[in-house]
Amino acid sequence: MAGNSFGDVFRITTFGESHGEAIGVIIDGCPANITLDESFIQSELDKRRPGQSRITTQRKESDTAKILSGVFEGKTTGTPLAMVIPNEDQRSKDYSHIKDRYRPSHADYTYQMKYGIRDYRGGGRSSARETAARVAAGAVAKTLLAQSDIRIFAHVSGVGKIEAPNLVSHDIDELINIREGNIARCADPATANEMIDFIDSVRKAGDTVGGRISVIIQNTPVGLGEPVFDKLHADLAKAMMGINAVHGFEYGSGFAGSQMRGSEHNDIFVNPANDAEHLKTLTNFSGGIQGGISNGMDITFRVAFKPVATIMRPQQTVNQAGEASEITGKGRHDPCVVPRAVIIVEAMAALVLADHLLKNRIYETTK
Amino acid sequence: MAGNSFGDVFRITTFGESHGEAIGVIIDGCPANITLDESFIQSELDKRRPGQSRITTQRKESDTAKILSGVFEGKTTGTPLAMVIPNEDQRSKDYSHIKDRYRPSHADYTYQMKYGIRDYRGGGRSSARETAARVAAGAVAKTLLAQSDIRIFAHVSGVGKIEAPNLVSHDIDELINIREGNIARCADPATANEMIDFIDSVRKAGDTVGGRISVIIQNTPVGLGEPVFDKLHADLAKAMMGINAVHGFEYGSGFAGSQMRGSEHNDIFVNPANDAEHLKTLTNFSGGIQGGISNGMDITFRVAFKPVATIMRPQQTVNQAGEASEITGKGRHDPCVVPRAVIIVEAMAALVLADHLLKNRIYETTK
Amino acid sequence: MAGNSFGDVFRITTFGESHGEAIGVIIDGCPANITLDESFIQSELDKRRPGQSRITTQRKESDTAKILSGVFEGKTTGTPLAMVIPNEDQRSKDYSHIKDRYRPSHADYTYQMKYGIRDYRGGGRSSARETAARVAAGAVAKTLLAQSDIRIFAHVSGVGKIEAPNLVSHDIDELINIREGNIARCADPATANEMIDFIDSVRKAGDTVGGRISVIIQNTPVGLGEPVFDKLHADLAKAMMGINAVHGFEYGSGFAGSQMRGSEHNDIFVNPANDAEHLKTLTNFSGGIQGGISNGMDITFRVAFKPVATIMRPQQTVNQAGEASEITGKGRHDPCVVPRAVIIVEAMAALVLADHLLKNRIYETTK
Amino acid sequence: MAGNSFGDVFRITTFGESHGEAIGVIIDGCPANITLDESFIQSELDKRRPGQSRITTQRKESDTAKILSGVFEGKTTGTPLAMVIPNEDQRSKDYSHIKDRYRPSHADYTYQMKYGIRDYRGGGRSSARETAARVAAGAVAKTLLAQSDIRIFAHVSGVGKIEAPNLVSHDIDELINIREGNIARCADPATANEMIDFIDSVRKAGDTVGGRISVIIQNTPVGLGEPVFDKLHADLAKAMMGINAVHGFEYGSGFAGSQMRGSEHNDIFVNPANDAEHLKTLTNFSGGIQGGISNGMDITFRVAFKPVATIMRPQQTVNQAGEASEITGKGRHDPCVVPRAVIIVEAMAALVLADHLLKNRIYETTK
Repeated sequence: MAGNSFGDVFRITTFGESHGEAIGVIIDGCPANITLDESFIQSELDKRRPGQSRITTQRKESDTAKILSGVFEGKTTGTPLAMVIPNEDQRSKDYSHIKDRYRPSHADYTYQMKYGIRDYRGGGRSSARETAARVAAGAVAKTLLAQSDIRIFAHVSGVGKIEAPNLVSHDIDELINIREGNIARCADPATANEMIDFIDSVRKAGDTVGGRISVIIQNTPVGLGEPVFDKLHADLAKAMMGINAVHGFEYGSGFAGSQMRGSEHNDIFVNPANDAEHLKTLTNFSGGIQGGISNGMDITFRVAFKPVATIMRPQQTVNQAGEASEITGKGRHDPCVVPRAVIIVEAMAALVLADHLLKNRIYETTK
Repeated sequence: MAGNSFGDVFRITTFGESHGEAIGVIIDGCPANITLDESFIQSELDKRRPGQSRITTQRKESDTAKILSGVFEGKTTGTPLAMVIPNEDQRSKDYSHIKDRYRPSHADYTYQMKYGIRDYRGGGRSSARETAARVAAGAVAKTLLAQSDIRIFAHVSGVGKIEAPNLVSHDIDELINIREGNIARCADPATANEMIDFIDSVRKAGDTVGGRISVIIQNTPVGLGEPVFDKLHADLAKAMMGINAVHGFEYGSGFAGSQMRGSEHNDIFVNPANDAEHLKTLTNFSGGIQGGISNGMDITFRVAFKPVATIMRPQQTVNQAGEASEITGKGRHDPCVVPRAVIIVEAMAALVLADHLLKNRIYETTK
Repeated sequence: MAGNSFGDVFRITTFGESHGEAIGVIIDGCPANITLDESFIQSELDKRRPGQSRITTQRKESDTAKILSGVFEGKTTGTPLAMVIPNEDQRSKDYSHIKDRYRPSHADYTYQMKYGIRDYRGGGRSSARETAARVAAGAVAKTLLAQSDIRIFAHVSGVGKIEAPNLVSHDIDELINIREGNIARCADPATANEMIDFIDSVRKAGDTVGGRISVIIQNTPVGLGEPVFDKLHADLAKAMMGINAVHGFEYGSGFAGSQMRGSEHNDIFVNPANDAEHLKTLTNFSGGIQGGISNGMDITFRVAFKPVATIMRPQQTVNQAGEASEITGKGRHDPCVVPRAVIIVEAMAALVLADHLLKNRIYETTK
Repeated sequence: MAGNSFGDVFRITTFGESHGEAIGVIIDGCPANITLDESFIQSELDKRRPGQSRITTQRKESDTAKILSGVFEGKTTGTPLAMVIPNEDQRSKDYSHIKDRYRPSHADYTYQMKYGIRDYRGGGRSSARETAARVAAGAVAKTLLAQSDIRIFAHVSGVGKIEAPNLVSHDIDELINIREGNIARCADPATANEMIDFIDSVRKAGDTVGGRISVIIQNTPVGLGEPVFDKLHADLAKAMMGINAVHGFEYGSGFAGSQMRGSEHNDIFVNPANDAEHLKTLTNFSGGIQGGISNGMDITFRVAFKPVATIMRPQQTVNQAGEASEITGKGRHDPCVVPRAVIIVEAMAALVLADHLLKNRIYETTK
């Protein structure tokens, strides 16, 4: 109801403000007997952590997740798994420049109006810092999905007007290697360099820029997704649109597909393995989902992020009293959010898939 | 869980298959004492009804909704409001051409795999016929929203590669008049003619084409939307992606915004009415939503529909036994779905807004 | 939220008022491929139907359920199963005696205060007529449970101060035969006669009387129930307390158990079948549930019903304007509700068990 | 779904095992701008804390709750409020006597069967230690309710066969004073002494005993509760049955009411304040709830607790391998749970009332 939970069966609830004591998450509905590797959780958090490169915010956070419950002798027990990530960088800063001023294209005004109060320190709850909790939960979801060989890969496919070419390889491990080899997190090294240079120039201009993340999910079994409202792509869309700064979502052929004709767009079924329960399609404009249910082909989608709202330039605005005012960004902010958001996108996708994988167990046993 | 409900507070559950006895909907959570105009519900259904023009399917359905409960002496009572729409066109057809064959880019294969059974008559539950129930429920939601002067307007802004210019008028009543003046349901008459000619040519070629619908919502109060996962645009995205054939969603600046810089994209606050609780922004790249919460500006979004999968041409496919097969569309199908989908998009938007309007009552009273 | 749905996975939503067009139910989450016997659904409704004996209300209703969706060629399809039961006895009655008067111990006052409007015809939504929809849904749940050999038996174990002895037989079919052999629906024929005579005398005195229903559930697998809040007995309690007129619930040793010592009350584990996964206990004060999870022993509970509020005697009350008034019951009411409520109790128990049986599939596959 | 959340609008999710790092709770849906008194939260926890008297367990826990989020400058912000209570007494104990043995009438067997794994240290998640998190959340709910003058009072009304007389005073503050004046937490001092002596004797015999808690809730507005399934008393029943060791629930006239006649049981409406929207009833067999909705009278209910299962005597049992075994309770356990459970009952009642109070805001604004 109040919007801080996601998922029905594999359900997470996050808490925490940017500069409060801690952020964290409870996972309720994680099956028992899953061997959890805490170093894997940490390695995922490290990919989202601030300060990892010159094109990200320089805020200092180790982002160490501590498991408080739900794990016994290295395995999940089926009880709620709680993780807490302390906020280390809570130094008593001067917030006087934003305390009573509404930063443009931030959530200051809407939070103040909705709740009649807001924690103005670093954006409080509206800060993307909250997504660290999602990444920790996503690591657990990925561990569950790995038992079914389901793999998720996201990378930066666009920054500003720069667009990466389509992926050549479809080997997830290889793709991750390429992506992690550059600070733009693009799976095409040449485009990555272009992106990095561009982000650098934007940063030096005190400005920010938007970007796009493309995702591929492999080895999803046929049958995930619950029509009619909880279609698999509808839940993916909601998950992605719930990430800070996201303004667009498309799957399969997406917006481009809306310009096509049925005779080009239809994905023709074939049966290469001579297995009537594991068909393939010649094309994949459906993005691996038909009628809201996964069809076993790769699931593909793309997410658009607006430019970060905090810029290092003076901007006109209005303060809480309704008076004209001016504001200039201070401190440590990302010039472009997509390199760090890659792991958030993967985490949310993993949460959607884990939820639907478990949900489908209810029905698959009856066939 | 099983995916046939939408909304938390203003919650609908739909039922029914394309060629079963009836389709229908229960609305649970509609407030009491709302005066319902049944002729308004019917007029909404008429806009979605098949057979309304030469560019839509010719299936014959009067789509008459009967209210079974929840209304007493013309007013809602706060109890569940059930509506049933009988399926009139259930004539015993010959389904032998699809009974055991998987139609390309339809849900036949995924339904069969997920459930081990499917009602193959006209697509069963996966048919867009189910959306008539949403339109009926949407009419009730619109009635609720009208009490707060909230207005929703959708129109066809693109068909194939044809794109309508930006709206000139922002007067909803005028826009509806223009839109209903042409069978393409585009608010620009010149573009509408172009679209109609194009759809006609596609239809004559036995083919289909995709399109786009643009939406504007006016007079939304500040405060709707529940961060962090149930952001207003996240719920709109889920609602839209849950409509048959939708492949993309964007709000505010959308995908184009991801190419912009922060300094261009930020919406500057101003206070023209000298009212600190009702600010405006100079631009509206935020699409009326900041931090997942409505800010009082117009809410704007756009939805992409793939081309209808049923085409009147022979296509290769595979049957249930896994054997190669051929299939050709028969009967009465839409060459382009967007003219009829306009009212479905409006209905789903109304359901999201009604749900969040009611949800926000919990919090607004505490300020 | 608005309270007309029950269950998470096997989820029902009911609608309808006592004297509206129809009542009905949607089941969302019923697994596919279950063969439904409509005559079984009808036979269940017949046990709840008014007018079946001299100790029940004489209202005339055939209570025929029509399936509108979710079933194809006799089998469930995994899509929502909607059933409608028309209200036949809607004759234009004179409601002037209750239209603006609050009947004592009825829901007239609270509905009027909560909703600002009420359908006063026969109690509207607050009438127990709504439970017919639950019985229809319960019949589907029982069909699902029968696949796992789970059997539910309820009978009238108390009327007024009359109390039936403990059950001798534990053979469900035999118990049903005995119960259905008398109009009190008590599994002890001698006590049944006593109850019938007593109810008759109460009825003739224009009065009503309360009673108790006892339940036994057999063959439940170990593992149903979700700690900590959704304990199996907590959901059973909620289900029972949601039935009209219920004022008390106890399971296993119940209130009497609260007078006992641990040394008498503890159920000692034994392993008669030499099967470490199917233990038994020597006693069953736990009522088949430990830590909120079924342990494989018989589940036992008891439900208390207050006397029906409508009596055929003049009573003082207050009208909607706040003025003193008098009211006398008219027409066709039950002198004692428990004989007809037996099947409602079974239906709600079946819905709880079906929900938890499906829910547990998520976890059982991971062991 | 997995059962660790309670409430729809004012929703809590608890986590933690008896001997893990910590237990805790997230409250999602607490309205903004509530001034929180941390010392009040602590004083509530102190009433549940182990080791507070000779008739409770001697486990040493300070039970200090730390707020991690959702509060800014002493006020709630509308964002999730997380509280953590570290487990101090985690000393490396010898659990060899229970590690592979199923304690009679505990949850060892059912947890092992359901999850295939269990944290055997002190019962893990099935331990009543988890209820400390509920008490902390309940203190926040009470703070919310206090804004509407709603007061909740619970006390020990029965231990074994000892039964307290009906309450004389209805002044909550006076009642709390009396109750807190004795370690049995009974509002009748003479009965309290009797109870204490009896519990002492039971403890010395290495045994345990059950008991009963009675509750009165004052100043509830008319209108709380959502028919038909989420009746106010149905949610209270579920809340109470979800507390460890509870075996029975009754409200208003309860089981005794099922022996009465309608003519005695009906509560006659009167209008002493000459206010048609605030009627009273002469009697209150309805327990303040009619048709599932509060009617403004005192809400009354009673809860039955079985005797604690851990006794200091040898008992026969079966181990995980299915072999006969013997077990004897060790350490620090309550001989009777009700004196400490009083505050848990109040907390759960507060959570139900807070949830329904907020839920009703959706509807009350439409009248």
